[in-house]
Amino acid sequence: MPLDTASCLAALAEAFPGAALFTGDDVPARNLHDTSFLPAVAPLAVVRPDSPEGVAEAVRICAEHGVPMVAQGGLTGLAGGAHPVAGCVAMSLERLAGIEEIDPAAATMTVRAGTPLEVIQKAADEAGFFIPLDLGARGSCQIGGNIGTNAGGNRVIRYGMTREMVLGLEYALPDGTLIDGLNKMLKNNAGYDLKQLFIGSEGTLGIVTRAVLRMHPKPGCVNAALCGLSSYEDVLRLLAAARRGLGPMLSAFEVMWPDYWQVVTGEVGARSPLEGTHAMYVLLEAQGLDEDIDGPRFMSWIEGAFEAGIIADAAISQSLGDVQSFWDVRDACAEFQTVLGPHCAFDIGLPQTRMNEFADACRARLKEDMPEALSVYYGHIGDGNLHIVALDRAQAQPPMKRISAVVYDTVRDFGGTISAEHGIGLLKKPYLSYTRSEKELALMARIKAALDPQGLLNPGKVIDTPATGKTDA
Amino acid sequence: MPLDTASCLAALAEAFPGAALFTGDDVPARNLHDTSFLPAVAPLAVVRPDSPEGVAEAVRICAEHGVPMVAQGGLTGLAGGAHPVAGCVAMSLERLAGIEEIDPAAATMTVRAGTPLEVIQKAADEAGFFIPLDLGARGSCQIGGNIGTNAGGNRVIRYGMTREMVLGLEYALPDGTLIDGLNKMLKNNAGYDLKQLFIGSEGTLGIVTRAVLRMHPKPGCVNAALCGLSSYEDVLRLLAAARRGLGPMLSAFEVMWPDYWQVVTGEVGARSPLEGTHAMYVLLEAQGLDEDIDGPRFMSWIEGAFEAGIIADAAISQSLGDVQSFWDVRDACAEFQTVLGPHCAFDIGLPQTRMNEFADACRARLKEDMPEALSVYYGHIGDGNLHIVALDRAQAQPPMKRISAVVYDTVRDFGGTISAEHGIGLLKKPYLSYTRSEKELALMARIKAALDPQGLLNPGKVIDTPATGKTDA
Repeated sequence: MPLDTASCLAALAEAFPGAALFTGDDVPARNLHDTSFLPAVAPLAVVRPDSPEGVAEAVRICAEHGVPMVAQGGLTGLAGGAHPVAGCVAMSLERLAGIEEIDPAAATMTVRAGTPLEVIQKAADEAGFFIPLDLGARGSCQIGGNIGTNAGGNRVIRYGMTREMVLGLEYALPDGTLIDGLNKMLKNNAGYDLKQLFIGSEGTLGIVTRAVLRMHPKPGCVNAALCGLSSYEDVLRLLAAARRGLGPMLSAFEVMWPDYWQVVTGEVGARSPLEGTHAMYVLLEAQGLDEDIDGPRFMSWIEGAFEAGIIADAAISQSLGDVQSFWDVRDACAEFQTVLGPHCAFDIGLPQTRMNEFADACRARLKEDMPEALSVYYGHIGDGNLHIVALDRAQAQPPMKRISAVVYDTVRDFGGTISAEHGIGLLKKPYLSYTRSEKELALMARIKAALDPQGLLNPGKVIDTPATGKTDA
Repeated sequence: MPLDTASCLAALAEAFPGAALFTGDDVPARNLHDTSFLPAVAPLAVVRPDSPEGVAEAVRICAEHGVPMVAQGGLTGLAGGAHPVAGCVAMSLERLAGIEEIDPAAATMTVRAGTPLEVIQKAADEAGFFIPLDLGARGSCQIGGNIGTNAGGNRVIRYGMTREMVLGLEYALPDGTLIDGLNKMLKNNAGYDLKQLFIGSEGTLGIVTRAVLRMHPKPGCVNAALCGLSSYEDVLRLLAAARRGLGPMLSAFEVMWPDYWQVVTGEVGARSPLEGTHAMYVLLEAQGLDEDIDGPRFMSWIEGAFEAGIIADAAISQSLGDVQSFWDVRDACAEFQTVLGPHCAFDIGLPQTRMNEFADACRARLKEDMPEALSVYYGHIGDGNLHIVALDRAQAQPPMKRISAVVYDTVRDFGGTISAEHGIGLLKKPYLSYTRSEKELALMARIKAALDPQGLLNPGKVIDTPATGKTDA
């Protein structure tokens, strides 16, 4: 299909009158970038359909005119997956929002892609259920983006990633075909499980329009502890003890290194419930069935860990307010932009046994390259997912490529993954071969070419379409 | 590639000398069929590689000569997925067996595709871990087949299907490329999650050679109850109460209708731990952390259900022997072939609220069509998965097409799936459109064509390769 921008915009204007389409200078500033800190790029237009059929129609029009498309949700992604590319039409899902159905018997919720995660969490709660997906951006991220990136977050250790919560999926293919796979059944082995291909492919194979989510029973009680430990070896002992002693109750196991702790209790000003300093900090949470049984069990398990010398000190929640205050320390990283200024953020994955060794190596290598480098370490260590925030205090803008090179070289040396949960987008694409083999990359490209032969959907992200001969964006 | 059987067999004989290849009359009888009761078909040859590279090499040779291939594992599948097709080479995984690694720190096990499930279960147990995948054929089914069919089984309600247990996957593509995706990390969002495409695609897109499985902590205690209930409404009330009261401890919720109960406690001779007869029977199991806490909790929960009038009668396990004896009643369906003779077996999925209504309708419609029809109903109702065994006592051989037509028409009327866990294979392929839309089928065919343009891998199963113009097998 030849690229035909003017007639594409004319066709879009006819199909999407009024505020359903912004073009030129009317494109809102928020649509020029996501949260990847890449330079702003103005899309040709922002189209805002309010129905699945509208999304499919917009995609069909763009495809007919050979115009590239980038899906945009809450724009909270950190890897550039929703960042506009030059000459694209941005497909905003913001008007395709709302909960269509809550089915208590099936324990499912049918939602539109543009619905913010927090709205979904609250609706489930009001219906007596629980949506375990939770991340810092809950107030502004949208479920379509969570699905497109296979978001992880705080409770993967118990409930899995977004993939495990999606029972059914509706999406527009790159040619505008709308695939209605809104299955509500827990088990359905009737042919290929197509939705798996679209979950986590960052809008490069299709655009999610609706989803059926699995709801869980609401936890009867929540207990948490913020622990100080004397070594990383004790962190591993505590994780093993928690898996054994709390089993499926264990709903979070978050680890913070002293450099992280120092920033959040220092510059950020989060209140530490622990006295003194420790070699490692762990926030662990257990969701139980009833406080009368699971509260004492949690307490006696913590006492056991203390007596075994695994924990040096611990604050134990006496109320949901305490649980929240422990999470406030962990969530204080949301203030890093304010207190540290521009920085690079990473979400690598590693074997748990090598996490501390990696942090030491990465910190030293960054310092070696940039003597004023600051890097702090924390994350969902129960899932093998380490977050790193890094910058060079000698430079106002962080040298993204230089820092990334050090971090990803170290990841490769340790046999890890360059992305555990945020995805590849634009920022990590140059490093994808550090984690995936040439054969895997070729297979990804083959799948991309089969579904998007024109290479029009989120071009230059994750993997290129070989047919178009495009190279790195 | 032109079909060139003779030179293909010559090349295979050169690459796989001795007992690694059987041809002609040397092909073992066991390789002529799976457990689908389809008429036996002799493959041209059975090749038995003992390494992943050997599998890839065998595939490459067949692909070069345009010879179709069918992967064979334990041959316990019920849908015909591993049944030979005319003119094919059977790729047996039986010599690619064994456990390569157990990593206690990562809680993973790396296994070869031909390893029987029971061997894997026992190895995990000996290492202090638990593999939740469990099904009746555990002694003979192989993990490669479990993955290829995304097997369900007894504990999906707590642990999910096979898909949820696979962290990494190695497989040969239809051209013989070996994709090494043996990831051991819980979270890895680096590009498309390719393995998802091969899990559950029944050997039509690739042949699984090795896998990394996620192990779980070993349960500290197991409690079970076999309950008699007065109505299906009470079954739904019991399921809701179990989800609330046992939460993530609930590890099985199996339902048996009176027709099933009558056969297993009658012809099969299983010992019923309940007095008298009931409208419905439920086997429920809870895996706890420690007997001192979770035993009394289970008992008090059961007492609550009894006092609320949900349960009419219940036998409650006092020992692991009791738990096993309850499962013996549920597993007695393995004797159906002996006591009922040839029959049709189904594994449909339905919204739980409509299960009983469906059973009534299906039973009546079968009787209407065949006055001597016998059909019995049971299954993993906690997962929305109903098993049906049906036959016509007026005929020595069950009229497969006639019975299937009635069952699947009823499934379609009730908005269910024709396969919850066994897969499509050959037997259910004519009915796939009852559960999947035309657009979904077209997308499946497009993916098949992209990965297997010659249509050589398990041809005629699940979905056809459009490029070859093949139609129904």
